Amino acid sequence: MVLPMEMLDKLMNSKISIVLKDGRAVEGKLTGYDAYMNIVVDDAEEKDGDNVKRLGRVVLRGNSITSILQI
Amino acid sequence: MVLPMEMLDKLMNSKISIVLKDGRAVEGKLTGYDAYMNIVVDDAEEKDGDNVKRLGRVVLRGNSITSILQI
Amino acid sequence: MVLPMEMLDKLMNSKISIVLKDGRAVEGKLTGYDAYMNIVVDDAEEKDGDNVKRLGRVVLRGNSITSILQI
Amino acid sequence: MVLPMEMLDKLMNSKISIVLKDGRAVEGKLTGYDAYMNIVVDDAEEKDGDNVKRLGRVVLRGNSITSILQI
Amino acid sequence: MVLPMEMLDKLMNSKISIVLKDGRAVEGKLTGYDAYMNIVVDDAEEKDGDNVKRLGRVVLRGNSITSILQI
Amino acid sequence: MVLPMEMLDKLMNSKISIVLKDGRAVEGKLTGYDAYMNIVVDDAEEKDGDNVKRLGRVVLRGNSITSILQI
Amino acid sequence: MVLPMEMLDKLMNSKISIVLKDGRAVEGKLTGYDAYMNIVVDDAEEKDGDNVKRLGRVVLRGNSITSILQI
Repeated sequence: MVLPMEMLDKLMNSKISIVLKDGRAVEGKLTGYDAYMNIVVDDAEEKDGDNVKRLGRVVLRGNSITSILQI
Repeated sequence: MVLPMEMLDKLMNSKISIVLKDGRAVEGKLTGYDAYMNIVVDDAEEKDGDNVKRLGRVVLRGNSITSILQI
Repeated sequence: MVLPMEMLDKLMNSKISIVLKDGRAVEGKLTGYDAYMNIVVDDAEEKDGDNVKRLGRVVLRGNSITSILQI
Repeated sequence: MVLPMEMLDKLMNSKISIVLKDGRAVEGKLTGYDAYMNIVVDDAEEKDGDNVKRLGRVVLRGNSITSILQI
Repeated sequence: MVLPMEMLDKLMNSKISIVLKDGRAVEGKLTGYDAYMNIVVDDAEEKDGDNVKRLGRVVLRGNSITSILQI
Repeated sequence: MVLPMEMLDKLMNSKISIVLKDGRAVEGKLTGYDAYMNIVVDDAEEKDGDNVKRLGRVVLRGNSITSILQI
Repeated sequence: MVLPMEMLDKLMNSKISIVLKDGRAVEGKLTGYDAYMNIVVDDAEEKDGDNVKRLGRVVLRGNSITSILQI
């Protein structure tokens, strides 16, 4: 059994991809999270097809997140 | 009576399909879950008609999930 | 007075139809539920007009459910 | 002062009409409710313009309900 | 300072207009409310442009309400 | 540090503009609020481009509010 | 580990960009926040493509926020 929060702990400092409810995908290094699945991502980039927008360090609200995966 | 959380426990390490609120379907092996129905899926693939996108290990937020079934 | 949760208890092992917020209708045998109205349905089929998709045993999140009825 | 829950109590066994968030209107006899405004409706019919679909006894999730009125 | 709930108390037995999240506007006499801002409206009418639909006494779920004003 | 609720306290009796989730913008004098960010606005006007609709005193549900600013 | 709330604390008095659920982007100086991620932004501007609308000091509801980043 891998609890979802343990999974986030294992992903710390790894590169992850996050899909948001509004359809945006954000990639970067997982730098922090809390019990609401709010997360902090470093060196974040927003990807929309071939377009890439550099975001730097970003806070994403857990309530806006659909899925998180290692890349 | 099969409680929904017991059902998830029985599905551990089985191949499941998850339909998300945004219409995406994700398939893979159920590897973990918590009381909010956040789930961890291994060897996950996103299926959109004939298109398949390999996701690897993914965390799906319970709040984004509509249904879960064994496949 | 028939409390909604008592109604679910009475429907156990009966064939039910569930309408989800995303418009999908799922039919099958009610096999379990919890206080959040998450439900487990056996021999489930998703109906979309004349199309029928067999789902087997499925967990439906209470938060995604609009209505439940015996059929 | 008529508390909303008292109003539901007074409507017990009366014919009511419920408008759901997805725009559907359901009519039938109020047979039960709980603190979340989940309700049980007997002899329910779904009305969509001139189309009528008989539903029988139905559970409607409070979270999906916009308004309830006596008819 | 007029607390929102005090404002509802002051509006008791007055004619109010309620805008719902689904865009409908309902007018009538405020007859009751609770801490969730569920409200009871007497002699209610739904207004959609020039169309008026008499609803009688109606319960509106707080979660479906956007704004309430005296008219 | 200006806590959001302190900010509302400072805005008391000032003219504010509120953007709602449904896209409507309401302007008027902030007359009250509570911990859910439900607010009471006096001499309220709804602005939709050049159209202005006088609302008088209005209660806006916190859950429907996106942003609040002094004008 | 950088907790999301610590990240907000570090961003105090910095220029940030906030994306809201309704698609609007607001830029300005972070002046305050609370546990619900409601935030206060000074010298705020709403950006919609090349259009810029000066907002001054604004309260943004946490529930309406998708992401926050330093700019």
